[in-house]
Amino acid sequence: MRTNLLILFVSFAVVGNAAEPLPSWNDSESKSAIIGFVKRVTDEASRDFVPVSKRIATFDNDGCLWSEQPMYFQLIFAIDRIKALAPQHPEWKAQEPFASVLKGDIKGVMASGEHGLMELIAATHAGMTIEEFDKIVREWTSTARHLKTGRLYTEMVYQPMLELLDYLRANGFKTFIVSGGGIEFMRPWAEQTYGIPPEQVVGSSLKMNYEVRDGTPVIVKLAEVDLIDDKEGKPVGIQSHIGRRPIFAAGNSDGDFQMLEWTTSGEGPRFGLIIHHTDAEREWAYDRDSHVGRLDRGLNEAPDRGWHIVDMKRDWKTIYPSQ
Amino acid sequence: MRTNLLILFVSFAVVGNAAEPLPSWNDSESKSAIIGFVKRVTDEASRDFVPVSKRIATFDNDGCLWSEQPMYFQLIFAIDRIKALAPQHPEWKAQEPFASVLKGDIKGVMASGEHGLMELIAATHAGMTIEEFDKIVREWTSTARHLKTGRLYTEMVYQPMLELLDYLRANGFKTFIVSGGGIEFMRPWAEQTYGIPPEQVVGSSLKMNYEVRDGTPVIVKLAEVDLIDDKEGKPVGIQSHIGRRPIFAAGNSDGDFQMLEWTTSGEGPRFGLIIHHTDAEREWAYDRDSHVGRLDRGLNEAPDRGWHIVDMKRDWKTIYPSQ
Repeated sequence: MRTNLLILFVSFAVVGNAAEPLPSWNDSESKSAIIGFVKRVTDEASRDFVPVSKRIATFDNDGCLWSEQPMYFQLIFAIDRIKALAPQHPEWKAQEPFASVLKGDIKGVMASGEHGLMELIAATHAGMTIEEFDKIVREWTSTARHLKTGRLYTEMVYQPMLELLDYLRANGFKTFIVSGGGIEFMRPWAEQTYGIPPEQVVGSSLKMNYEVRDGTPVIVKLAEVDLIDDKEGKPVGIQSHIGRRPIFAAGNSDGDFQMLEWTTSGEGPRFGLIIHHTDAEREWAYDRDSHVGRLDRGLNEAPDRGWHIVDMKRDWKTIYPSQ
Repeated sequence: MRTNLLILFVSFAVVGNAAEPLPSWNDSESKSAIIGFVKRVTDEASRDFVPVSKRIATFDNDGCLWSEQPMYFQLIFAIDRIKALAPQHPEWKAQEPFASVLKGDIKGVMASGEHGLMELIAATHAGMTIEEFDKIVREWTSTARHLKTGRLYTEMVYQPMLELLDYLRANGFKTFIVSGGGIEFMRPWAEQTYGIPPEQVVGSSLKMNYEVRDGTPVIVKLAEVDLIDDKEGKPVGIQSHIGRRPIFAAGNSDGDFQMLEWTTSGEGPRFGLIIHHTDAEREWAYDRDSHVGRLDRGLNEAPDRGWHIVDMKRDWKTIYPSQ
C-alpha cells in the first residue's frame, strides 16, 4: 500500500512538472525556445545533452527579476537610509550629495557624479559589520513600500521569472544572480524570494576587513570598491564566483551585454534571453533612451546573435505574483 | 517486483551509509566528535538541529586535503612551468628569481622575497586566458609526479579527508575549499578529486579582464593580486564567495586560524578541526618550526577554543588512497 502511494506520488510529481511549465507565459517564440532548449540539454539521447554539473544559469536582478523604476531599488534604500541617519548628521544639510538627498532632489544627487555616489555608499553601505548591514536590509525590505504600487519591493519580482527559475532548477540547473547591484544588499532576501542561496549571488562588492573587536570576530564593510559587477565586470564576476561559463543567461539592459556575449559564445548549446520592458500599463516601458536599464546595443544585436527577446507586454500573462 | 527491488536498494543505501562512516579513521576523540556533531545538527529533534541550507563546511587544501611537503605543490608547478618556458626566455639565466629556479636553488628563490614571488606568478599564472591556464594545470596534474612518493599530486590527497567530505555531503552539508592556494589552480581538478565543483572553491586570486579578441571573448588573468585567501583573508574570502558563516571548518596551519575562529565563534553548534602532521613515516611530521604549514598558535589555543586536533599518525589508518 505504502509503495503504491509512493509510486502514485512520484508519477504525479513527474506529470505535474511536465504538464505546463511557465504558466504565466503566453505562448510565444521565447517560451517555446526556452522549453525546447531545456528539453535538448536534459535529454541524454540528444547531441546537445549537458551534464547536470554544467547546467549553470545566470540572471541579472534589476529589471530582469524585479522592477527598477523610477530608480534602482537599492538607490531608494540608500536614500531612505540617509533620511534615517540624518538626525545624527546635522552637517549633511549643507553637504552634497546629502543635502540633495534630504531635499528629495534626485537630479542634484546625480549631479554629484561618481564621487557623490561613493559618498552615499560609504554613508549607507560601509563602516559597519556584515551582520549589521544584513539586519538593516532585512528591516527595509520587510517594511518599505514602492510609491507607485504600494508593494514591498520584494513583491515587485516578476512572476514569469520566478517560474523560469523554478523550471530550470527542476531540470537540474544551478541558478545564480549576477547583478550590478550590491552582493550584500541582495543576499538577505534572495533565498526566500528567488530560491537562490547567498553563495549563488554575485554582485558589486566593497572590500572587507576581518578583525577581532573586544574578543568578538567581525567582518567590516569598507568604503572601497572591490568589484563593479556590470558590463565587462559581469563575466569577471562569473569567473571569480562560479568558475565556469554559464550555458543560460538572462538580462534586460546593455549592462548585461557582456554576460550574454560570454555565455552564448561558448561551445555547445547556449541560451541568451533579454527582457524588453514594453508594458507601460502593468509595469514600465523603456529601452534605448532610459537612464535606468538602458537597452540599445542589445536590441540591435540580439537577432544576429540568436538571443531571444521577451516582449513583456505581449509575452507575460501577469507581471507580479498575486498578493 | 521492481518496487521490492527499489525498497531493498533504498534500505541498503541507508544501512550502508549508517554502518560505518569514516572507515579509514581509527576510533578516536576526533572521530567520535565528528560523528556526534553530525548526528546532533541533522537530528530534527535535537536543539542543535541545523537546516540543510546552513550546513556549510569549509576545508583548507594544502596540508589538510592533500600534502604540502617539501613545498607547496603549486610552487612545484610554478617551477616546472619556468623550466618548460625557459627556452623562450634566455634572459632568465641571468635574472632573479628565474636564475635560482633554473639552478634548482630554492633558497635563492625564497631570498627574492615577495617581489620575486610575484615575478614567478606573473610568468606562470598570468598573461593568459583562464582557458589556457586550465589546460596547463590539467596537463601538469595528469603527468607530474612527486619526487618522494612517485604519485601524481592529485593522488597525494588524504583518504580519511575524502571520507569526511563524503560523510558531510551525505548528511546535507555543502563542502567548500577555502585555501591560500590559487583558486584557478585548484578548480580544474577539485571536482574529480574531491567532489567539490568550481563554484565551491575559494582561493587566492589574480585580477582578471574581460575582452573580445578578434571577435572571440576571453577572460585574461592579470599579474595583479586580487585576494590573498590566507589568515585574515580567509573569513573575507568566505564572506565574499559563500555569504554565510560555516558551521564546520578544517585546517592544519596558523593560516587557518582566523577561518576556525570565525567559524566557531558563531551561535549554535560549531566544529573546528586541525590536522596535526605527526607521521614522519607515512607522510611528514612538522608543526611549530616548519616554514611550510607552520602550526603554533593553533596548537596552543585549540584546547581552550574547543577545536579538535587530529593526530595523523595515531588517528588515521591510511594516508593516501590505495592505487
